[in-house]
Amino acid sequence: MYFGGDYNPEQWPASVWASDFSLMREASVNLVTVGVFSWSRLQPTPDTFDFGWLDEVLDGLHEAGIGVCLATPTASPPPWFTRRYPDSMPVTREGVRLTHGSRDTYCVNAPAYRAASVRIASELAARYGTHPALRLWHVHNEYGTWCFCSHCALEFRAWLRTRYSTVDVLNDAWSTDFWSQRYAEWDEIVPPRATQYLRNPAQELDYRRFMSDSFLRHFLEQKAVLAGAPVTTNFVLGDWVPVDHARWSSFVDLVAIDDYPPDLAGRAFSADKARGWALAAGHPAGRWLLMEHAPGYSHTSSGLRRSTESLSSVASVYLDRGAVGIMYFQWRASRGGAEQWHPALVGFSSPVFAEACSLGASLASRSPADVSADVAVVYDEESMWAWQSPHLPTRVDYTSLVQSWHASLAARGPVDVIPVGAPLGGYRLLVVPALYLMSASAHEWLRSYSGQLVITAGTGLVDEHLRMTPDSLADLIGASVVERDFSPWLDTLAPLAAGAREGVTYLPTLDVVDLEQLTLNS
Amino acid sequence: MYFGGDYNPEQWPASVWASDFSLMREASVNLVTVGVFSWSRLQPTPDTFDFGWLDEVLDGLHEAGIGVCLATPTASPPPWFTRRYPDSMPVTREGVRLTHGSRDTYCVNAPAYRAASVRIASELAARYGTHPALRLWHVHNEYGTWCFCSHCALEFRAWLRTRYSTVDVLNDAWSTDFWSQRYAEWDEIVPPRATQYLRNPAQELDYRRFMSDSFLRHFLEQKAVLAGAPVTTNFVLGDWVPVDHARWSSFVDLVAIDDYPPDLAGRAFSADKARGWALAAGHPAGRWLLMEHAPGYSHTSSGLRRSTESLSSVASVYLDRGAVGIMYFQWRASRGGAEQWHPALVGFSSPVFAEACSLGASLASRSPADVSADVAVVYDEESMWAWQSPHLPTRVDYTSLVQSWHASLAARGPVDVIPVGAPLGGYRLLVVPALYLMSASAHEWLRSYSGQLVITAGTGLVDEHLRMTPDSLADLIGASVVERDFSPWLDTLAPLAAGAREGVTYLPTLDVVDLEQLTLNS
Amino acid sequence: MYFGGDYNPEQWPASVWASDFSLMREASVNLVTVGVFSWSRLQPTPDTFDFGWLDEVLDGLHEAGIGVCLATPTASPPPWFTRRYPDSMPVTREGVRLTHGSRDTYCVNAPAYRAASVRIASELAARYGTHPALRLWHVHNEYGTWCFCSHCALEFRAWLRTRYSTVDVLNDAWSTDFWSQRYAEWDEIVPPRATQYLRNPAQELDYRRFMSDSFLRHFLEQKAVLAGAPVTTNFVLGDWVPVDHARWSSFVDLVAIDDYPPDLAGRAFSADKARGWALAAGHPAGRWLLMEHAPGYSHTSSGLRRSTESLSSVASVYLDRGAVGIMYFQWRASRGGAEQWHPALVGFSSPVFAEACSLGASLASRSPADVSADVAVVYDEESMWAWQSPHLPTRVDYTSLVQSWHASLAARGPVDVIPVGAPLGGYRLLVVPALYLMSASAHEWLRSYSGQLVITAGTGLVDEHLRMTPDSLADLIGASVVERDFSPWLDTLAPLAAGAREGVTYLPTLDVVDLEQLTLNS
Repeated sequence: MYFGGDYNPEQWPASVWASDFSLMREASVNLVTVGVFSWSRLQPTPDTFDFGWLDEVLDGLHEAGIGVCLATPTASPPPWFTRRYPDSMPVTREGVRLTHGSRDTYCVNAPAYRAASVRIASELAARYGTHPALRLWHVHNEYGTWCFCSHCALEFRAWLRTRYSTVDVLNDAWSTDFWSQRYAEWDEIVPPRATQYLRNPAQELDYRRFMSDSFLRHFLEQKAVLAGAPVTTNFVLGDWVPVDHARWSSFVDLVAIDDYPPDLAGRAFSADKARGWALAAGHPAGRWLLMEHAPGYSHTSSGLRRSTESLSSVASVYLDRGAVGIMYFQWRASRGGAEQWHPALVGFSSPVFAEACSLGASLASRSPADVSADVAVVYDEESMWAWQSPHLPTRVDYTSLVQSWHASLAARGPVDVIPVGAPLGGYRLLVVPALYLMSASAHEWLRSYSGQLVITAGTGLVDEHLRMTPDSLADLIGASVVERDFSPWLDTLAPLAAGAREGVTYLPTLDVVDLEQLTLNS
Repeated sequence: MYFGGDYNPEQWPASVWASDFSLMREASVNLVTVGVFSWSRLQPTPDTFDFGWLDEVLDGLHEAGIGVCLATPTASPPPWFTRRYPDSMPVTREGVRLTHGSRDTYCVNAPAYRAASVRIASELAARYGTHPALRLWHVHNEYGTWCFCSHCALEFRAWLRTRYSTVDVLNDAWSTDFWSQRYAEWDEIVPPRATQYLRNPAQELDYRRFMSDSFLRHFLEQKAVLAGAPVTTNFVLGDWVPVDHARWSSFVDLVAIDDYPPDLAGRAFSADKARGWALAAGHPAGRWLLMEHAPGYSHTSSGLRRSTESLSSVASVYLDRGAVGIMYFQWRASRGGAEQWHPALVGFSSPVFAEACSLGASLASRSPADVSADVAVVYDEESMWAWQSPHLPTRVDYTSLVQSWHASLAARGPVDVIPVGAPLGGYRLLVVPALYLMSASAHEWLRSYSGQLVITAGTGLVDEHLRMTPDSLADLIGASVVERDFSPWLDTLAPLAAGAREGVTYLPTLDVVDLEQLTLNS
Repeated sequence: MYFGGDYNPEQWPASVWASDFSLMREASVNLVTVGVFSWSRLQPTPDTFDFGWLDEVLDGLHEAGIGVCLATPTASPPPWFTRRYPDSMPVTREGVRLTHGSRDTYCVNAPAYRAASVRIASELAARYGTHPALRLWHVHNEYGTWCFCSHCALEFRAWLRTRYSTVDVLNDAWSTDFWSQRYAEWDEIVPPRATQYLRNPAQELDYRRFMSDSFLRHFLEQKAVLAGAPVTTNFVLGDWVPVDHARWSSFVDLVAIDDYPPDLAGRAFSADKARGWALAAGHPAGRWLLMEHAPGYSHTSSGLRRSTESLSSVASVYLDRGAVGIMYFQWRASRGGAEQWHPALVGFSSPVFAEACSLGASLASRSPADVSADVAVVYDEESMWAWQSPHLPTRVDYTSLVQSWHASLAARGPVDVIPVGAPLGGYRLLVVPALYLMSASAHEWLRSYSGQLVITAGTGLVDEHLRMTPDSLADLIGASVVERDFSPWLDTLAPLAAGAREGVTYLPTLDVVDLEQLTLNS
């Protein structure tokens, strides 16, 4: 079991490091993430590298018996890079090229940025691939920076050519006959930049897929040069993130998430989601790692709130759901910078360090939990994205809706939160809330399931290009939707002669109900 | 009586068309609007035209006995156009040049756009001007796209020269001595782009007038080449629209509006407004056409809401107020695109098609209603714009205020909603709510009225250049305003010796009152 | 005692001026501010000046016995200037270069703007420095226009070099090791423009200081050429203003503020703040001038509200707190322009003119009040800025908090609102609410105080570079903070052996309490 957190020693004089190592031992820390934001220290100018300080840190950690999750620092390029390659800075939908001065100032499709990323990753691999402290490679940080620049435009077109072969196929997929958007040539296509009115939702969805694949290429380019330990990256969850984590889970050696929800229900949902991605991608026993969370506090709308639960209590939510480790952001609170008020295990006024020692000690004798759920709920990030399309009949917060279903089911026992396409063999009950977008293969997948199936309103309305698929569920639910209201959502059904498939229940609203109190398939 | 709606057959394979024609006949549809968003189909590349499919559609409609309202497709230029003429894309106040990917991506003052518009309109006129199905030309769609680009700057200066002759006259009109804005040369004037603080309200108002006239020029350039049927365009209502519909009503052969209010009061107000514009512009009997509305649903803040009223019931609101036809957006729901969830007569899960058949049948034997109102309320779009000026003493939602007055009056019988300058002969009672902006001719017009006149606070405060006109109503209301409060609005009056003109009542607040319960002129 | 207001005669024909002078005499006006927005009248083209009209105005005022506060018009450059020097227009964080059409359209670091400012100031000084009506020079207007252009970038780097000498010192001050922001060269540094995520708070704070110093340089460049009367400028208060008024108070000959709060408590706070700045800067008896406020009305969120108090009653709040004059914006209401609805003494429908006559008459026999407070509360604009940093543990409205403390204390007698560094000799009680940012000298200053000292939570948390200074108050309060919650804020203290310093009380929350009911130092 891993226990530790992000460690940014470059913010402190070397004299503090020894104290850190000692405190880490006291807390039974066995893994720290180093180097996430160290690029400007590791490569202070375009042509110089400085690994001396990092050697010292890794050697010190190793001597203290602490393993290292070594990050490639590509999420935060140094000032010299952004000055030298202004075309590598991200551009907003409105055409604003962002400047240095925060983090994540990169365009993942900029050639100079891709080259510089592979270069620094290669240097780190060469120097530390055989270091005895190395346990895990941590590529980048929280992939998710949108960009709409001309590099992206070029790559988007290339990605679309691969996907659609001809412009005619794309026109059909994107329904460009609406609003006179029919393309005659690939070069007419641009990213979904600021435009006059509602954007084409299929273009927007494909751009999100393209961003996800662009990040994935960047990840794989680094993974290819790393060696000596498993390679992962930390997923950041959120409706704004253009990353398809279910798809990515097949490419990481270990599924790892950052998680900052304010309450238990949110944490449990995240944990079951991470395990679901790991299961679907074939990771043994659905193991996953909690890479970041906030020790002792929650971020709420009125500010940081001191947790009423101990670190051990919060950690148990994750541990009971298959986490192989509990990691915090961060070990030692920062002296300055934009996140100096982020809670930490050390140096933040709170007694969490004592709690950490207690948790660390208990983890030493604990093994990862095996979770065996016979109930699953489907969560699909493409549907989450699709529910963000403009001009839908009503506003659905898909993630919250699935989380509510999860909470309702979890009150009675373990629940897997699974992506479309996950193995369905072991489930007695499968709940599919508002799965708006369903490709032909998603339909096949659902029909391959033979247990109790509950489908709610808002499911199966469009295909993978967001084209309407009326009554696509009719053979399953044994009815046709003959009228719809949307405030609130209510489908009026007309039964079909064939009747519903055995075990299938359709709920015509978006309400979350207690399924045990509902007579299924009545 | 017209009955039908927008028909976008290019979104569907030709095999669906025959079914459409048959269903249209079933519903007694006699007019469909075709081609609004067809530019990229009609002119797939700069130098090729493809009318074959439209020939087939028009011929098929004609064979089915259905008339055509043929649109020029200029509201949505094709991708090739926007790629070839990037200077024809609209630019926001902040200088962001918008991109293709929605609709309405044009600058109405861009020479290339104007030329391309006339070209496609001419081609359509040449090919279909004598087509037996042609009933109406529908130029463009919902004029109203703002632009602040350099083409607009040039044209704005030309428009201002015509309006003001000399810079000194403009300086006086715009009160440029405030905040050191005095212009020495025409070329110093720019559109009201993003600036440091409050904009000059007279400049802003003139820019809105200029946009309206720019659209009008674009409309008339197309009207000049069209032939074979009356020419109209569909007015879109809304406080953001820079189009003076009262002025435009003299230039269209038939006043036509798009109307999407969520309730009966809003629909009745729109209908009476449309009739008022038609009356003022001299259209016989104030006839007008409902060009678009949503069948069976309203757009509300919580989403689409299924109407509790039948299509016939909703339509009667318009028909009772002089509409010569009831048209929907749209005939068949779109398979994809940004408005795929827009309600439709066919293909949207609801039983509206049956309602449409019933309405269509009843319309066949109905004639346009003659409305005879002896009460009128004034609605003036220039005052609506002026009420949007920055830094007013309080925020007045002028349109809602006039609508409330309309509703109060309409509870007792027919009401005309008229623009400034409309004939006043037949009215027993004229209500003028918050007519902030009044030119000298508006003052003359009001004084030409000899019936019962009710004027509310907020009326007659500024001239057509938004220059204060203190006590400009004194001779009418027989009093001087000696103090004002604005939260809420309350004028304190001092009576003048001459007294109020006979029949004139002044209400010193913005409250809507039941005039029948008020002893007029007391 | 001064009595009068802003007078913008260029908005009116000369025929109105004589009436103005007569009315001013009637109201006992003895000072009017002229020329604030007259640049386009005074210098109608780059190479011509027109002082004739201003000669006439000043001569007329002098003949009427009215003094002049003569403004340099640099806050609102004329159209010809902004057209000729587009690089002198301000640029937003997002890179939008603003256009002419409002006021304050300048970049204070643009060389052309600085040169033009000195030129017009010199011309005014040469012509009016010996005019008998001249009482006061009023440089510019309400300094505070942000800019992020390339001129600013250059000057920012120069300012930083002076402040930090080497990039390494800056790296340490700005904590650039967080998020890989370490600079290798000065030229890598840019203003805090739009970036991907949270900005570096130390960079942001230094930029605000830099803006303040840039304005100060502009002020001093004009002050250097002016002669014949004391020189001031009107401070505009507000959380968005990048001007350190405590620092500036040493450079103006008279502290002058513009003040538009909606209630008495806000006015009293402003007045005591102005006196505090004057006191700290060594102005005799803390005298200051109310340069602008709104006669008879308050600006509230629901619009202008007629005051329930007379002008004399409102004025007494300022007069009782050391004001040497009461000035309004403005004398005569504007006929047009963005502020035509701003209340005025003449021409705005309200009986304030009669009230003004009464106030003016009473002022003639009144002397500036001497205020002797033995209680002070600290208000520090750098802390106010620092509380605007992103990602703080909770959102603190520092100004409102200090104002609440002020109101609580002021209920029992006079209170000084003082900046850090002000003389502390005479105070029995000093209250320090949430003084987040404290430099070493601020700590020294606080320790130099020997009376009753009340410090609240949120004080002394960071140094002048926003670097954490944990337990920096421990020696004063005799305790260490061992835990913090932030919603709401609550410090948990562990007493230290040495105990609190005599007379020191620490309040561990952000609640405002009635100190007389609190047993101090218990």
